[in-house]
Amino acid sequence: MSETAIPRYSKVRRADRGSYDHAAIHAVLDEGLVAHVGFVADDRPMVIPMIYGRVGENFYLHGAKAARFAKTMGPGVPVCITLTLPDAIVVGRSAFHCSMNYRAVMIHGNARLVTDLEEAEAALAAVTDHLLPGRWAESRPMTEKELRSTAVLRVEVEAASLKARSGPPIDEEEDYELPIWAGLIPLRVAAGAPVGDSRLREGVAIPASVKARL
Amino acid sequence: MSETAIPRYSKVRRADRGSYDHAAIHAVLDEGLVAHVGFVADDRPMVIPMIYGRVGENFYLHGAKAARFAKTMGPGVPVCITLTLPDAIVVGRSAFHCSMNYRAVMIHGNARLVTDLEEAEAALAAVTDHLLPGRWAESRPMTEKELRSTAVLRVEVEAASLKARSGPPIDEEEDYELPIWAGLIPLRVAAGAPVGDSRLREGVAIPASVKARL
Repeated sequence: MSETAIPRYSKVRRADRGSYDHAAIHAVLDEGLVAHVGFVADDRPMVIPMIYGRVGENFYLHGAKAARFAKTMGPGVPVCITLTLPDAIVVGRSAFHCSMNYRAVMIHGNARLVTDLEEAEAALAAVTDHLLPGRWAESRPMTEKELRSTAVLRVEVEAASLKARSGPPIDEEEDYELPIWAGLIPLRVAAGAPVGDSRLREGVAIPASVKARL
Repeated sequence: MSETAIPRYSKVRRADRGSYDHAAIHAVLDEGLVAHVGFVADDRPMVIPMIYGRVGENFYLHGAKAARFAKTMGPGVPVCITLTLPDAIVVGRSAFHCSMNYRAVMIHGNARLVTDLEEAEAALAAVTDHLLPGRWAESRPMTEKELRSTAVLRVEVEAASLKARSGPPIDEEEDYELPIWAGLIPLRVAAGAPVGDSRLREGVAIPASVKARL
């Protein structure tokens, strides 16, 4: 999408912090784990945390068919999906310039229930492998019953943007003289040592997917 | 709020995963860093990542007065604020039972621009000290000009709920016989070594607030 074609609701106010580049947006989506999905139900905003998957330009959500979100969103309602990676606490010399470094993707589009079972299965493979790359192939295959009890939603993307802050605190010029510490505290999501299930069969080793996450 | 008085839009579908206990909700809010704030603008759902602060039962957001969210939300519009702490990747023997452990708070209420400067300043202190406890007192004091250029919003909470999943994967009974690894990969937000600003004055030591985050 050319930058002039970006709809107003998807524009990042500070141009220096915005991007509409697909590859940059995909990289953030691929790194994140939990998206916050916003939609309107009974005239109220709702924001639900969800895991997700990406297949090329298609973005997928899933959940139990019985869940409220599936009933509300299935018919093709507008959604706003935001995924945020907090990168650092920005410690300014003044509280006014304390902030965060982050990368956030915002997607506007319509979520629609996937009725084609083949597409639904590919989407669920993408969701599983996004959570833990390679896990789909290691797992006991999904049954048709499981597939049919799962609501898979494809988000038809209308607009997507990336907003980011990076770099050191930007203080007021006169504050740089103050004897106050300033800088960054980097943040990251760290994975701990895997905890095997208590009913694991003897001799079952930690698989490649889990090892790769460490 | 007694459980029978919980409005439908704030009810957690699976009762075993829901709580409406204030102390439990506050604990998650205090541990989180970035909330996802949903509201409706021009009939569209919008979800914006924001830092926040809590003073007792009051929840505060802030941003530049020029930002779209402040103009949209200031007059007192309904918001849905969701804060999610991902605790673990749940690795089931089947992809169907791969999931996440998490704690998520969802707040419904109305956001309203704070016009009282004293309340606004106390809210900004709470936001700063939530980002980095103790930082407000270490910082160069906020000027009245800075205070007046900041939009502080108080969220008048109508309902709040906590939804959580914890514990091991729950697989289909017959799948426990399979020679497939299953278990948890714990996740946490880890802080790295602080990076001092390049314009730091000589001899300025890392302060207590930053040390406490490590």
